[in-house]
Amino acid sequence: MTDGRFMHDLATRLWPINRSITGNGLRQTLEILKEHLPELTITEVASGTQCFDWVVPPEWNVTQARLTAPDGSVVADIADHTLHLLGYSTPVDLRLSLDELQSHLYSLPDQPDAIPYMTSYYKERWGFCITDTARQALQPGEYHARIESTLDADGALSYGELVIPGESEQEIFISTYICHPSMANNELSGPVVATALAMWLSRLPQRKYTYRFVFIPETIGSIAYLSRNLEVLQSRVIAGFNVTCIGDERGYSYLASRHGDTLSDRVVQHVMQHVDPDHIRYPWEERGSDERQYCAPGIDLPITTVMRSKFGEYPEYHTSLDDLELVTPAGLQGGLDVLQKCCTVLEADAAYRVTVLGEPQLGKRGLYPNLSTKDTKRQVANMMNLISYSDGQHSVLDIAEKLDQPFWVLQPIAEVLYEHSLLENI
Amino acid sequence: MTDGRFMHDLATRLWPINRSITGNGLRQTLEILKEHLPELTITEVASGTQCFDWVVPPEWNVTQARLTAPDGSVVADIADHTLHLLGYSTPVDLRLSLDELQSHLYSLPDQPDAIPYMTSYYKERWGFCITDTARQALQPGEYHARIESTLDADGALSYGELVIPGESEQEIFISTYICHPSMANNELSGPVVATALAMWLSRLPQRKYTYRFVFIPETIGSIAYLSRNLEVLQSRVIAGFNVTCIGDERGYSYLASRHGDTLSDRVVQHVMQHVDPDHIRYPWEERGSDERQYCAPGIDLPITTVMRSKFGEYPEYHTSLDDLELVTPAGLQGGLDVLQKCCTVLEADAAYRVTVLGEPQLGKRGLYPNLSTKDTKRQVANMMNLISYSDGQHSVLDIAEKLDQPFWVLQPIAEVLYEHSLLENI
Amino acid sequence: MTDGRFMHDLATRLWPINRSITGNGLRQTLEILKEHLPELTITEVASGTQCFDWVVPPEWNVTQARLTAPDGSVVADIADHTLHLLGYSTPVDLRLSLDELQSHLYSLPDQPDAIPYMTSYYKERWGFCITDTARQALQPGEYHARIESTLDADGALSYGELVIPGESEQEIFISTYICHPSMANNELSGPVVATALAMWLSRLPQRKYTYRFVFIPETIGSIAYLSRNLEVLQSRVIAGFNVTCIGDERGYSYLASRHGDTLSDRVVQHVMQHVDPDHIRYPWEERGSDERQYCAPGIDLPITTVMRSKFGEYPEYHTSLDDLELVTPAGLQGGLDVLQKCCTVLEADAAYRVTVLGEPQLGKRGLYPNLSTKDTKRQVANMMNLISYSDGQHSVLDIAEKLDQPFWVLQPIAEVLYEHSLLENI
Repeated sequence: MTDGRFMHDLATRLWPINRSITGNGLRQTLEILKEHLPELTITEVASGTQCFDWVVPPEWNVTQARLTAPDGSVVADIADHTLHLLGYSTPVDLRLSLDELQSHLYSLPDQPDAIPYMTSYYKERWGFCITDTARQALQPGEYHARIESTLDADGALSYGELVIPGESEQEIFISTYICHPSMANNELSGPVVATALAMWLSRLPQRKYTYRFVFIPETIGSIAYLSRNLEVLQSRVIAGFNVTCIGDERGYSYLASRHGDTLSDRVVQHVMQHVDPDHIRYPWEERGSDERQYCAPGIDLPITTVMRSKFGEYPEYHTSLDDLELVTPAGLQGGLDVLQKCCTVLEADAAYRVTVLGEPQLGKRGLYPNLSTKDTKRQVANMMNLISYSDGQHSVLDIAEKLDQPFWVLQPIAEVLYEHSLLENI
Repeated sequence: MTDGRFMHDLATRLWPINRSITGNGLRQTLEILKEHLPELTITEVASGTQCFDWVVPPEWNVTQARLTAPDGSVVADIADHTLHLLGYSTPVDLRLSLDELQSHLYSLPDQPDAIPYMTSYYKERWGFCITDTARQALQPGEYHARIESTLDADGALSYGELVIPGESEQEIFISTYICHPSMANNELSGPVVATALAMWLSRLPQRKYTYRFVFIPETIGSIAYLSRNLEVLQSRVIAGFNVTCIGDERGYSYLASRHGDTLSDRVVQHVMQHVDPDHIRYPWEERGSDERQYCAPGIDLPITTVMRSKFGEYPEYHTSLDDLELVTPAGLQGGLDVLQKCCTVLEADAAYRVTVLGEPQLGKRGLYPNLSTKDTKRQVANMMNLISYSDGQHSVLDIAEKLDQPFWVLQPIAEVLYEHSLLENI
Repeated sequence: MTDGRFMHDLATRLWPINRSITGNGLRQTLEILKEHLPELTITEVASGTQCFDWVVPPEWNVTQARLTAPDGSVVADIADHTLHLLGYSTPVDLRLSLDELQSHLYSLPDQPDAIPYMTSYYKERWGFCITDTARQALQPGEYHARIESTLDADGALSYGELVIPGESEQEIFISTYICHPSMANNELSGPVVATALAMWLSRLPQRKYTYRFVFIPETIGSIAYLSRNLEVLQSRVIAGFNVTCIGDERGYSYLASRHGDTLSDRVVQHVMQHVDPDHIRYPWEERGSDERQYCAPGIDLPITTVMRSKFGEYPEYHTSLDDLELVTPAGLQGGLDVLQKCCTVLEADAAYRVTVLGEPQLGKRGLYPNLSTKDTKRQVANMMNLISYSDGQHSVLDIAEKLDQPFWVLQPIAEVLYEHSLLENI
């Protein structure tokens, strides 16, 4: 089975779960991921815990939520689609007129066949989200809104964490979020690609760096995680990626870190440039996901957000149209590929020094290809350029950028030259 | 009365005075300005004083100057327009033929209805300036040139100086010149805008910086002033503006300092960018006013020249067409506005540090607008961006430049955040 | 006789010699150059000498080389054109069929009337180079290939060296190569322009710098020279030029040093910008001549390659079409002119400081031109700008770059100002 198919199947399995920033949907999601990542640990942060400027809210769980029309037909039922219920809705059991109901309904006149995604974490509300087409068809009469939910002040916020050790204590940090209900690109693509990436890293024969993955609810989860792990992250993390919206087949994009020039920025920029020259670099001002926390003043982790279509920039975003047809095996595979390439660059980059003065005589070492084609010409040029810039000051990534060649084309050539003792490590 | 009307009225009152680089016209001009700036002090530098590479010339005064045609009609009379007399004309009382007269006449064939502005400060000459239309109509015969002028080696050069104290001894330096006779943009706009700016600064409840204004004759005046005040200027001035040609209604422009990247350059560039995106930045090579002295090697003050239409770049420059119709109340008001904004940026810029780790929760502080409109979205984005860049390394001006937002839009938001203890001074 | 004519005549005399990377053709060439450069010393490096990663090959000499057709007609004879023989051909005396012969023939189907230039220095081969037109006309039958050549392991590689002393031990290094047989732009233009440049430098009344010229075989020659002189070069050379392909009348170009920003890069860029605004700057990645050795890691001399049409970029390159019609007296003169200007900038650049504070009064020193024309306006502007930037921090070249004016226009003005004591040396 391809990685793309594996990831899409995993997303399909996670799809129906009613996730939010707290609650059992989070725990179920983490348990399923743990089947593939046995070392995943799950942590609970008690509701009411102060985390920097924030407080972990009461835990929200729902057993049932249905809106019934005067004629007894079902207008919205969480059992049909988790988006039908306003996130963090308080419990109600009310009969009310259509007029009274209207302020509790959410729909999108511009996308009349989409159910919108709405939440109210920090202000108590209840509501149902439906298509605008359905809303316009509602008839006057008495409606029945019944939401069996609990907001438990003694609950907790759950998150998952996985550390894959490497030779160095220095870490690459991968963050993704698991707080959205049934949406595919802006939610499930992140955790399934992160899971496949962690599985791939675990299988590598050796790792220079340690990898730390977190699966958290967005905003309050990253704030809670940072408030408990800031010192260790600041002392160890040399690069990292927030992974989201990474499963559609449109382009590629990334959101720059606050400083804009960290190692993470450099690596993702290099990789995307060669994978998709039309990728988009969004500046810090366009941020919106957990990079907001990771790069905040005083936190300053070197994190960029890696995406295909950016959150808020594609029409299906935050609606029921963001589904498992928008996200495809090929789309997920492309996202995984970019992250694997980023890790490869981080792992393999090194600065070499040429061991001879003047140009080496490559002919006597059999390093010239026998056939001269356009491809071999490029390869010889790359080899000669690698040698000429390997003065101990330029790493392979530096040279790849100078030559506008992919790192993964130059690095194997550097290995060959190293084996022939023409390059030495410094 | 608006500032614009006040300034235009003041320019109208100063219009008929026959100013030059020395003489009573200078003193009369300074006395009128002193009516509005009671603290203005007037200094006299004796003719013959060595000032760096220059010597203050004899003082020039004129009581009468008239050129009469063979038929007794008046060709030119200083009483009609001060431009009719070549500046620094020596006294004469001569009868001469039209042919003999020609080398003493100045006109502009390309602008046949304009009287040109001509001077001869450092070589003894006499002459009359007339329209080319008038010149072409002159008939042969005996002309009478009579100039009652004095060149007094025991005279002086006069300049005005005003210091408006602030909390700091550090100074903002404003220079403008008062040596041109009846011309409006390239002369009177400068002193009247500088006067209104000084009046506005004096009325401010507090000033961080001390402001030093000088009203001087161009070139020899700034050289004389520098030769007497160089040390104090070099030790105190952190920014400054030479104010000229600032009353027409065309665009805005400034002339960069010699170094090109001083605080003055940065501030005027920021202000003009948001007041007039089409403003022109003239490089140092296009200089021509007193910035030549203030930025000279070894002097190196951080001074830029602030203008609307640059001297030499508008057709009416140095002719009788540069009048009080070209300069308008609205034009002067725009010039004053730019300088007030420059002073505001200098006064209010500061670097803050956000007081919480991670994003602050703005909702609990009521800092989110209730209504979401395009304007409030921009305001929230500005607030969040201000917070995210307030790491103690970026001042509000730095952030304004990063965000391409006006300083005067961001700075009030910074104040609100400061009042809510979300930002602290560093 | 003009320099251009002198250089073209010298190239004509050198044309028929069968040069290679070793052998008597090298020695004959050096002896002819020595007629014009009496101080030229000739050095022999024994075959078999290890030079960095390379070994000096056996010395190659040829007394006769002819390919005869079945009908007795001459297909190719080195006496007709030195390009007819594959460089470093081993001796043969063979009768063989056309089929057997084909793998020893070289021609260019795309340029059917050109004899290609081919060599096989480090792998033993023999062969003849002919036009493709001639090749297609060959008839079956028995051919006679006779090459009387020697490959002498007790031979040597010859090079020439010339040091023209200056006031300083710091050196300008000029390298050119003499290893190609009868080709004009990619070979003879280099040594003849270098010779004329050395003659011109020798005639100068004074030189600030010492000039070192080398006339060497390409690649193995520069490697051999570097291996014997590296320390002295690294301690003395402040700038230098590899001179090649400098005699045609097309544009101008240069190949940047590996670091790209050495003094040599700056000087040649400035000169070419004003001599030919359409000149081409080739980056290091496009290298191909001895700059490969001079700029290699660990060698790091500040050398750029100065050319008209770059090697490999003009259609006649490495064929018999690269002849003395492609290279002209005017083309050579232009190349010499660029190098003379480069040396002039290196010799004459200096930083000055203006001796007065504020602008000097030029009028009293008679430094203003009497007539005001477009030319004199430019001259006055240059003079004022030179003064205003002469703060001891900017050299005349720095100022020339700032003003986008040629060094050779500004430098004489600086001299005048120096004579008037307005500028002082620092």
